[in-house]
Amino acid sequence: MNVLLKNEGIPVENSLFIRALNRQSHDRTPVWLMRQAGRYLPEYREIRQKVRDFWELCQTPELACEVTLQPLRRYALDAAIVFSDILTIPHAMGFSLAFQEKKGPVFEKVFNHENALKDIQVDNIHERLAYVYDTVAMVRKNMPKDIPLIGFAGSPWTLACYMIEGQSSRDFDKVFQFLYHHPESMHELLNILADVVSAYLIKQAQSGAQALMIFDTWGGIMPALNYQRFNLNYIHKIVHSIRAACPETPVVVFGKGTAHWLPEIAQTGCQGISLDWTVDLAKARQLVGDKVALQGNLHPKVLLQSDEVIVREITQLLHSYGAGPGHVFNLGHGITPDVRPDAVQVLIETVRNVSKDLANG
Amino acid sequence: MNVLLKNEGIPVENSLFIRALNRQSHDRTPVWLMRQAGRYLPEYREIRQKVRDFWELCQTPELACEVTLQPLRRYALDAAIVFSDILTIPHAMGFSLAFQEKKGPVFEKVFNHENALKDIQVDNIHERLAYVYDTVAMVRKNMPKDIPLIGFAGSPWTLACYMIEGQSSRDFDKVFQFLYHHPESMHELLNILADVVSAYLIKQAQSGAQALMIFDTWGGIMPALNYQRFNLNYIHKIVHSIRAACPETPVVVFGKGTAHWLPEIAQTGCQGISLDWTVDLAKARQLVGDKVALQGNLHPKVLLQSDEVIVREITQLLHSYGAGPGHVFNLGHGITPDVRPDAVQVLIETVRNVSKDLANG
Repeated sequence: MNVLLKNEGIPVENSLFIRALNRQSHDRTPVWLMRQAGRYLPEYREIRQKVRDFWELCQTPELACEVTLQPLRRYALDAAIVFSDILTIPHAMGFSLAFQEKKGPVFEKVFNHENALKDIQVDNIHERLAYVYDTVAMVRKNMPKDIPLIGFAGSPWTLACYMIEGQSSRDFDKVFQFLYHHPESMHELLNILADVVSAYLIKQAQSGAQALMIFDTWGGIMPALNYQRFNLNYIHKIVHSIRAACPETPVVVFGKGTAHWLPEIAQTGCQGISLDWTVDLAKARQLVGDKVALQGNLHPKVLLQSDEVIVREITQLLHSYGAGPGHVFNLGHGITPDVRPDAVQVLIETVRNVSKDLANG
Repeated sequence: MNVLLKNEGIPVENSLFIRALNRQSHDRTPVWLMRQAGRYLPEYREIRQKVRDFWELCQTPELACEVTLQPLRRYALDAAIVFSDILTIPHAMGFSLAFQEKKGPVFEKVFNHENALKDIQVDNIHERLAYVYDTVAMVRKNMPKDIPLIGFAGSPWTLACYMIEGQSSRDFDKVFQFLYHHPESMHELLNILADVVSAYLIKQAQSGAQALMIFDTWGGIMPALNYQRFNLNYIHKIVHSIRAACPETPVVVFGKGTAHWLPEIAQTGCQGISLDWTVDLAKARQLVGDKVALQGNLHPKVLLQSDEVIVREITQLLHSYGAGPGHVFNLGHGITPDVRPDAVQVLIETVRNVSKDLANG
């Protein structure tokens, strides 16, 4: 478990991961995994037991730093992602969170048309988010210098969904009632969120993150005629703010259930699109051309199968992308808590071996 | 409520709905709604109270016929769909069902690799499905002659999901374990299901249905590299069997979360694709060209909003498709039980008025 200490002396901006996002040549495909720091690791569960809830873990830089680094000690990963949550922003805006076991996060009050915008606290919001910037800086300091660190945030639409619904939802009835009856208030909320998310991501980059990711978890529930106006336009705005402030920092957009919007997502100015497992890599590559890199997209359930199946499915997936740069290997969604840690080892070795062969023709 | 008795003397094969599926000219867009016979109607709830469960309602032709006709008495709909369920086929194969309030259907045993194919009862299966054919014939006899009747079935993959999981699922862990470890058994199961579904749909057409629909409810959960092999190829097989046996009967494929496969679905030989609410009609029309008609795709949550919002959203949707034939108006998913019956009236009037204006340029 000394992977963490390895430093091959390559400057981080020339790392495989950053090069892949810039669609530069490679000798193998870089790999990291969404939620690679998480409950499937016994050492994570050990730290988690020391705190009241998931939220306390996010808010304590020393512990968040430690769990960010845990997977790097076990596996030869090509990137780390800061341990945090997309709900840090609503929380800092005055929407307090309670984490309940099995139910996930629940807001103590919800955002609605009446209390609406006057209840949002934006003044000095970055002071209330300082613990995230502190975590980023601490991880950066304690991480191998050649491995890039990813900062992240939720998309404005996805954050609005949580703020209006008060929790994760199946139907999003409140969100849609708000959207259909108060489109102007929705735009006001999304605008505020886009500004805060932009500044938040830029500050993560300034604190030590080499790449930034926007999680559009709920983009896939949107009625077609609202998707661009109420979602993608705000992601576009964020990407442009980041590019202006830190032009060297690539931005990756993850969308779930948004495979039919790939060309439009590619036009936001982002450097990479992270794909869910339903998207054919060969088709996606054809659709976006050399405009953006692609990240993904192994079906997370593959990691629950035998080693033989894991090797077979990864090999097929890498071959479906084919040779050439512009691919970051990842799952199509986060690792689930029931994954065997050994399965992740098999994944990483397979990606390394198969993609080396592919790169060597 | 005398809409049912209206018969404008037009032969059913020249009805607006059938003409739209054949992309023939029209003076307005035809409209019907998935689950138009259902819990949002008080007269449906009255009938439902007389029986033990939803399943008994499906299996009693007189009652299933009655609830099929109910929405036609209230609304000027352009098609009816036989009141039934996609799980009739697994049930007839020996997988008994229990309907539990709020939980939905639960199978008394599940399909797994060990008991697998030997437990499936296919001999004389159409005798055990006769109640569906009887319902179709009864509805056809009691319906206005100029309104088309739609028969339907689930896709083999969707039926396999229910049979292997035993019930609706969030994660489909059992399904994917089966798929990844026993692909050959999965193909055997899907092949059997494709044959049964083909014969089932052909018999519905022969009993009086003028159009057929295949519901691929769970196509959207499939990993990209499995979608065509384990799903679309079987839909293709069914469409071809139907076209050979009843070449005059159009086939519509509904997929949820499969918007990124539209060109491939159009190549199954189907006449129409029914779209969920996330798909942009203008883009979809461009993608499939004049190969197939499109059905859909109002966001079902629009029907929970004010009349003003309903009119606005429908108008936008019809304009996004634009002028010209090949569109059947529908929701992007079934009507939910909390819809006001008056909202459906507003929907139908709006579709009629706006689409007439569009057709007249």
